[in-house]
Amino acid sequence: MSEHKTIDVAATQMLDRAKEIGFLTTFDRAKAQEPRCTFGNTGICCRICLQGPCRILPKKPGGNKGICGAADYTIVARNTVRYIAGGAAAHSDHGRHIAETLLHVAEGKLHDYKVTDPDKLVRVAKRIGVETEGRDVMAITKDVASAALAEFGRVDETQELTWINAYTDEKRLDLWRKTTIMPSGINLSLAQLLHQTHVGTDSDPVNIIFGGLKAALCDIDGQHLATDLSDILFGTGVPVVTEANLGAIKADKVNIALHGHNPLLSQMVVNAAKEMQDEAKAAGATGINLVGICCTGNEVLMREGVAIATNFATQELAVMTGAMDAMVVDVQCIMPSLRSAAECFHTKIVTTMPIMKIPGSYHFAFDEHNAINSAKEIIRLAIEAYKNRDASKVSIPEIKNTVVAGFSLESILNIFGKINPENPIRVLVDAIEAGEIKGIASLIGCNNLKGTHDQNHTAIAIELAKNDVFLLAGGCSAQAHALAGMMNGEAVKKYAGEGLKKFFARLNAAAGLTTELPLMFHTGSCVDYSRQQDLVNMLAKEMGVENHEVPYVVSAPEAMSEKAVAIGSWNVAYGNPTHVGVIAPTVGSQLVNDVVTKIAEDVFGGFFFWEPDALKASERLVEIIEERNWKNAMRKKARDAKAAAE
Amino acid sequence: MSEHKTIDVAATQMLDRAKEIGFLTTFDRAKAQEPRCTFGNTGICCRICLQGPCRILPKKPGGNKGICGAADYTIVARNTVRYIAGGAAAHSDHGRHIAETLLHVAEGKLHDYKVTDPDKLVRVAKRIGVETEGRDVMAITKDVASAALAEFGRVDETQELTWINAYTDEKRLDLWRKTTIMPSGINLSLAQLLHQTHVGTDSDPVNIIFGGLKAALCDIDGQHLATDLSDILFGTGVPVVTEANLGAIKADKVNIALHGHNPLLSQMVVNAAKEMQDEAKAAGATGINLVGICCTGNEVLMREGVAIATNFATQELAVMTGAMDAMVVDVQCIMPSLRSAAECFHTKIVTTMPIMKIPGSYHFAFDEHNAINSAKEIIRLAIEAYKNRDASKVSIPEIKNTVVAGFSLESILNIFGKINPENPIRVLVDAIEAGEIKGIASLIGCNNLKGTHDQNHTAIAIELAKNDVFLLAGGCSAQAHALAGMMNGEAVKKYAGEGLKKFFARLNAAAGLTTELPLMFHTGSCVDYSRQQDLVNMLAKEMGVENHEVPYVVSAPEAMSEKAVAIGSWNVAYGNPTHVGVIAPTVGSQLVNDVVTKIAEDVFGGFFFWEPDALKASERLVEIIEERNWKNAMRKKARDAKAAAE
Repeated sequence: MSEHKTIDVAATQMLDRAKEIGFLTTFDRAKAQEPRCTFGNTGICCRICLQGPCRILPKKPGGNKGICGAADYTIVARNTVRYIAGGAAAHSDHGRHIAETLLHVAEGKLHDYKVTDPDKLVRVAKRIGVETEGRDVMAITKDVASAALAEFGRVDETQELTWINAYTDEKRLDLWRKTTIMPSGINLSLAQLLHQTHVGTDSDPVNIIFGGLKAALCDIDGQHLATDLSDILFGTGVPVVTEANLGAIKADKVNIALHGHNPLLSQMVVNAAKEMQDEAKAAGATGINLVGICCTGNEVLMREGVAIATNFATQELAVMTGAMDAMVVDVQCIMPSLRSAAECFHTKIVTTMPIMKIPGSYHFAFDEHNAINSAKEIIRLAIEAYKNRDASKVSIPEIKNTVVAGFSLESILNIFGKINPENPIRVLVDAIEAGEIKGIASLIGCNNLKGTHDQNHTAIAIELAKNDVFLLAGGCSAQAHALAGMMNGEAVKKYAGEGLKKFFARLNAAAGLTTELPLMFHTGSCVDYSRQQDLVNMLAKEMGVENHEVPYVVSAPEAMSEKAVAIGSWNVAYGNPTHVGVIAPTVGSQLVNDVVTKIAEDVFGGFFFWEPDALKASERLVEIIEERNWKNAMRKKARDAKAAAE
Repeated sequence: MSEHKTIDVAATQMLDRAKEIGFLTTFDRAKAQEPRCTFGNTGICCRICLQGPCRILPKKPGGNKGICGAADYTIVARNTVRYIAGGAAAHSDHGRHIAETLLHVAEGKLHDYKVTDPDKLVRVAKRIGVETEGRDVMAITKDVASAALAEFGRVDETQELTWINAYTDEKRLDLWRKTTIMPSGINLSLAQLLHQTHVGTDSDPVNIIFGGLKAALCDIDGQHLATDLSDILFGTGVPVVTEANLGAIKADKVNIALHGHNPLLSQMVVNAAKEMQDEAKAAGATGINLVGICCTGNEVLMREGVAIATNFATQELAVMTGAMDAMVVDVQCIMPSLRSAAECFHTKIVTTMPIMKIPGSYHFAFDEHNAINSAKEIIRLAIEAYKNRDASKVSIPEIKNTVVAGFSLESILNIFGKINPENPIRVLVDAIEAGEIKGIASLIGCNNLKGTHDQNHTAIAIELAKNDVFLLAGGCSAQAHALAGMMNGEAVKKYAGEGLKKFFARLNAAAGLTTELPLMFHTGSCVDYSRQQDLVNMLAKEMGVENHEVPYVVSAPEAMSEKAVAIGSWNVAYGNPTHVGVIAPTVGSQLVNDVVTKIAEDVFGGFFFWEPDALKASERLVEIIEERNWKNAMRKKARDAKAAAE
């Protein structure tokens, strides 16, 4: 197992299979890149102009700065915020696409999409200041979608983003204004950040980082509206029971993996598949079996209970089973190597979006105006491919685990509401104040083969659960837990501390679900982390503390994508201590590293820390939560003493 | 001299001085970075996610692709287009700033700016479809400024950019539509390109390059409106005589260098300085002496005849003279090392824009609402600094050359119009068709110390002039010629071929200027290259050929900044053969390199070529021009023969 650097048993089996057939996977390629270039790895290689690359050489006269004179701190800061720009662009462009689709629904241009959750529409409309009283659903929809699109088009710098304004408390907003990180338009801020980091523009690392935080706030804004509008279009998740791991791929069915991030097409495939089971049967299969990979997988898991096949690092292995007939991909985190993997089998890799193609793959230009038919055509491709499947090459690991997912903020509050209907969030606050649970942690982020696949995701979850920390999870991190069989009620029994067990017992008793609640509440895709932040904002309000005083921490043990850098950065701006399990490319500059890991706390209350060791990271996360609890208790004591004295 | 890698005599003197005082300049830092990392230098180092850096190792199993499976062509294409994104963001954000200012003028919010060139306003308005008949100047201004800002805010992908539509012929526009590179919104396209190049999104190199070309068209669009609106605000350049090189710094005056790219502040400093000579005299100086560096220098040169102190690579040396009292900088291409240089002297480095600060420098937050007073305060800082000047440290090279500049498209056509008032552009076409001149070349771009400073700029100009190529120049390239004493009438006598000399003789006879025309027409800043393209578009129309058939070439011998990559890319999309004198970071992928240097010609008629040797580059540029002339002649012959047969 250790040879393969994964803790996942099914993945290990498939990696052995890959070795048999001589296919080099991402695990092999990660090994081939060892050791990493120290300059690039620590952020002190500058390629922002064509005179370089400039690599900081502290001991070489003239080499301790770039050719233009940029010091380590300038180079590191610029490289870091350009990661944020890339991540915020990806997340927010996803949101823009959803907003555009919703607008077209409101304009009557699309017939295969509809407002599936009008209650959420009204809640969002009220929150962002769109009039709802006595208005037609489509009129409200149009205004909400237009407000979302306006976030992207705004160029008047005296205005502010609507979404983060609507969902963030005034004190935090003021802090952002004071620190000049409040954005006006999403695309504007991203373009400005590129300008700011152009050669010979900003060299002040703090100013650059503030520019980066501005882009990070665009990330959460784009995320938030993406989540809201996706819920409106496709429904807001409620608890579902399904399964996870490669064993969810069925030898007797037409298997289609939905992979990427954007639900616009994948949801249509889900809808179309329901009507097309007979076509699959006509081809000799017992039906169609959909499975999810990465965050498109999370989207259809949350809303439709589609099983999880696997997560980012192991996506090639779904093809390696020999039973994957088509993999339908949209955007982000889709390995180009899928195409090479597919060459060894009959699998059709179907790209669908204009900005995402893979040479040699089948590109199906997805047409939203004809969405269901597009989805059907794609399914037919899979059925055709199924006919070419070579049974002798099929090798599906018999490993799968029960998963309970579907924890939108609404469904979380609905469960709490079974205990306290008047004030659901109070249930969580009571549990914290009673010491039943210590606090809350969000387990988020990607896979990164600098460590062992999924190892730290699960190890940190286990440690935090043992310490009575209530867990939320999303993205590929949530999938790690699901794959490992930790996203169910059994895991609570196995891993939760006594307090957390009690808390779950109360919740289970009240929830009235047909299943027990899982060890971690899966909130959805990596574009859905605003659900976590909304919960934290509610907690702060209910506890009477500020955002950065809530006993809440974030952990991304295997941060990989630029989106992860953007997500981590807005978490810090919101006041959240944020663990990253890989050494960040800020360490090349002591100054920048100190700013993001120390000074940030003085300014925003949140900060980063890097810790590749799961146990050490967990200890620190628990300590932070305990310290926040202790400080809150001290503050309460002081207030009580003052009140008593008056 | 060779030790210093510059052909500039004044720079050589100052570099000796730097050595004396122990200051390491950019020349030393460039040397310290030798040899460059081959991976970064050829574009095959990927840092787009946190698993890497991934460096392509063709012979290592698994190492010939990135960890995600990205091939060399994907990595190189992504890196290349991210350069374009950075460049287009810088140029266009500059344009947006100008547009915002012009809108505020129209709204009566600003009192120190005005519409200086109402004729240009009307010409631009008519061109972009703003009604002018019987309308008030401010009403037209508001519509033009709003149309410019709309370029940045547009998110409706079914619409198109206004400026490039207004200034490009329909055939070329159709080509861009067919190749999916026509942008709708500037900021939208930039954000999308970041998304497209996010890990696991596009891996198709051609699709990625097309995404990059879309961003490049945003660059020219942003450039064009920046130029138009700057001309409207500050006036359109007419021929001026001034001087260039460090000798333009005066020992007996308060010297202020205007450096960066944006004329919004620098023009105010020029205006304010006129009123403040007495304050300088009161401090013991004989007055205020403004000099320009980089493209802010070009802006005030074009409109106000401000002398050029030096260009990008040698900016530190202006401080090194010991007589630079303040250097006022705005955005782009400002070396962070200026601050270190200033520490050795009394020079105040004054940063002025919110996205551009230098640690330890004086930041003066420029307020457009109080622009003239802001400028005056900055000048007062310089006067104060002057009082601290140490005369013993003053060492100004006695080198300066006469410069004739100010060649806006309008002033070029005005000169041609003296010969052919009905159809000025015909003068150029006649000269080409008569074989008096072979064609036109634009000498553009930056400094890049991978070669010898300014050497190839001047060497290529000399070769092309000898071959009767009419020369346009801009950016730091134009400054190279000016510094070297080639931007005047003497240079025509010295370097021009017989045909070109005849052409100049006719122009000089007609122009009626008090000075002879220079060897190359300086069109302005690097944001002003739309002037060149407009001329080419007019030539194509007048010659009855397509854009890519005009005997026109572009040369950027020392391309350095991301802007240069964006500029080169839109030149290729317009059909222009584009020489770059440094080996581009596309060579790491044979495929991508072939696409941009060969296939591009089949698609757009334009293409890149890399050639560090000035003579070889010149030969190829002349050959291309001759080939285009020959093809045009063949086409004409065929047409004539056909007409005769009918």
